[in-house]
Amino acid sequence: MTDTPKAPGPRSHGRLSISASLQPRDLMDGRPRLKGAWTARVVTLFPEAFPGVLGLSLTGRALDLGLWALETIDLRPFGEGKHRNVDDTPAGGGAGMVLRPDVMGAALDQAAIGTPGDRARWPVVYLSPRGAPFTQAMAHRFAQADGITLICGRFEGLDERVIEEYAVEEVSLGDFVLTGGEIAAQALIDASVRLIPRVLGNQASTEEESFSEGLLEHPQYTRPAVWKGRAIPDILLSGHHAKIADWRRAMAERLTKERRPDLWRAYRERHGRDPDGDQEL
Amino acid sequence: MTDTPKAPGPRSHGRLSISASLQPRDLMDGRPRLKGAWTARVVTLFPEAFPGVLGLSLTGRALDLGLWALETIDLRPFGEGKHRNVDDTPAGGGAGMVLRPDVMGAALDQAAIGTPGDRARWPVVYLSPRGAPFTQAMAHRFAQADGITLICGRFEGLDERVIEEYAVEEVSLGDFVLTGGEIAAQALIDASVRLIPRVLGNQASTEEESFSEGLLEHPQYTRPAVWKGRAIPDILLSGHHAKIADWRRAMAERLTKERRPDLWRAYRERHGRDPDGDQEL
Repeated sequence: MTDTPKAPGPRSHGRLSISASLQPRDLMDGRPRLKGAWTARVVTLFPEAFPGVLGLSLTGRALDLGLWALETIDLRPFGEGKHRNVDDTPAGGGAGMVLRPDVMGAALDQAAIGTPGDRARWPVVYLSPRGAPFTQAMAHRFAQADGITLICGRFEGLDERVIEEYAVEEVSLGDFVLTGGEIAAQALIDASVRLIPRVLGNQASTEEESFSEGLLEHPQYTRPAVWKGRAIPDILLSGHHAKIADWRRAMAERLTKERRPDLWRAYRERHGRDPDGDQEL
Repeated sequence: MTDTPKAPGPRSHGRLSISASLQPRDLMDGRPRLKGAWTARVVTLFPEAFPGVLGLSLTGRALDLGLWALETIDLRPFGEGKHRNVDDTPAGGGAGMVLRPDVMGAALDQAAIGTPGDRARWPVVYLSPRGAPFTQAMAHRFAQADGITLICGRFEGLDERVIEEYAVEEVSLGDFVLTGGEIAAQALIDASVRLIPRVLGNQASTEEESFSEGLLEHPQYTRPAVWKGRAIPDILLSGHHAKIADWRRAMAERLTKERRPDLWRAYRERHGRDPDGDQEL
């Protein structure tokens, strides 16, 4: 676009001193960056929300090691006029404000620099309750891409024409309404990053294994053996590994059946059993 | 509990200077606090993750105004021994670590001080993929309580006996695995806080209205009228309010039918129509 606005002068956004430029802001701050490292680019009105929780714990350590990279693109400098407005009233009337297509388009042009145009290699995702529900399978798909661009919405939404023009994939965190897309973006990034090789390290996750199988995880216990009169089930202290594995699977199946009939039905169908059968476990 | 460990000396956790005490840390930092304001208490190993995104935008302004309150309870000082260990190996073997029931129990005893024991008035929620899926209806229920205690998990999970002993409600953000419960807690708090009276202010949300009806939101458009050869649909510029409303409903219904057959079926059933009927909209 030729009418991309000039960036305003440097501004301070809270604890990080940020100069509001049209360049993506690299949040690694002197961290190493491995060649070809998986990269999340986040278009947001609140760049100071990142890395947030993602800068802590396993995802934070992996960021420090350069196993993945995080960049924010502040939407504000792309806004129109003196106040850098990014939104306007909805066509046809109604409450709230809608993010302008020209403003978001300019930000997405910036985000696309140096990324493959193939959406399979670099998905462009808009976090919105209208999207397809985010799942573990989707996290695996995103983690296998080169990187991802995430659009964090605010207000009533995003002009539909941007979604069409940029082949944007709409993804929903769930059937609830958030104030903005930033928390949803962090959830999506967290779930994806932990699937990148070496990020989890030796912390092999049985939860992940259980989940990938389509079952909820069995109950867990640890020391002390008795607590407030409640004892760890005997079987877990028996040392019979095969019996423990059987017990855990039976508990996982029972829990899934009780709490998530939808997952249970899919699990039964994959295992070639009548999904409506009521066989005792 | 009589064996509650003494807190270690003051430590610095990143940008906020925190003294690790057994008292909940009030994140309002001199903010006003309206009498009876809805309060979220978060038990976490990463108190520095809060308020995070919740301190920005509408939720942040509402926090500044005292319309709600946020407190963190650092789990670490409740840990055992010199290293304040909070977890141990799973009974029966397996990968990962499990949060100890005595350690979490002591933190929950602390979190319960001054709160009603009635779980309807003050739910105690553990964020876990094993839980019931978080929904907008659940957000409404939480927002109508006096407050909520949230347990952020890490590692493989939480000892099952704590869940039973403290009547903990398990809630899942969705069918994906996160590194920890902090991002899920922020999503739950965000969705609940925005339903507290006065938080949204004049920003009446049509998205919320559409969602509460069980439909995905219709497409939105704003200026410019033509962008990259794409025009706003004529009907939205017609000024015929009734026709615009009809168009929006038809689009919302079509989108829901295409993208979310589960929501579409429930919507049709509520409206007394054959859910499998294929009537053209």
